[in-house]
Amino acid sequence: MTHEPVDIAAKLSAFSEHWSPKVVARLNDYEVKVVKVQGEFVWHTHDETDELFLVIEGELTIQLRDGNVVLRAGQLFVVPRGVEHCPVADGEVHAVLIEPAGVVNTGDAGGALTAAYDDSLL
Amino acid sequence: MTHEPVDIAAKLSAFSEHWSPKVVARLNDYEVKVVKVQGEFVWHTHDETDELFLVIEGELTIQLRDGNVVLRAGQLFVVPRGVEHCPVADGEVHAVLIEPAGVVNTGDAGGALTAAYDDSLL
Repeated sequence: MTHEPVDIAAKLSAFSEHWSPKVVARLNDYEVKVVKVQGEFVWHTHDETDELFLVIEGELTIQLRDGNVVLRAGQLFVVPRGVEHCPVADGEVHAVLIEPAGVVNTGDAGGALTAAYDDSLL
Repeated sequence: MTHEPVDIAAKLSAFSEHWSPKVVARLNDYEVKVVKVQGEFVWHTHDETDELFLVIEGELTIQLRDGNVVLRAGQLFVVPRGVEHCPVADGEVHAVLIEPAGVVNTGDAGGALTAAYDDSLL
């Protein structure tokens, strides 16, 4: 039997839209997602969970109310549960998100940037 | 306030020993670990959890009883809970592991390669 690895860059090359995370792997009740982002997202909070951001390409700033964190390729940051945050990127950023299944990208904020659940790349 | 990203390569440069995962971030009750490996590990199973391997550098083969998966930089694989596996690498591999806190590297096998819990890089 052949087992196939998940190639992060290949998954990212399969789509172009921004702010639309796509599940590429499951880890127990967690999901690994890939996402492309550019511009400013929306301030929001996940009250029930931490959220891991890992940048694959580009430079992502995660704005927090008490300061920013800047992530470049190979760098990760975990936004703690309950901490309001707002990602922003001047150029396009390719990133990986890891969080429990069912987390909505806009958290408590909702709105137009709320992405539909997408596991079409799984 | 300044928030610092976790730089995976910088964390990996901080040690040289093999088969000794070091916690670099926490995500709820999960841990993100970095590890350097070379040679063959031990066949083992984690009955209670899946285990995510992400290769940063080098080529890692995860042997499974029904076939192997080969991971190169930027590729990940989730070994399902209960599935016996044995990582092996000809050259040195730098990798990230993600799994619930408390998972022991040798699972049910134990033995000399069982690593002590190490969160000194957190």
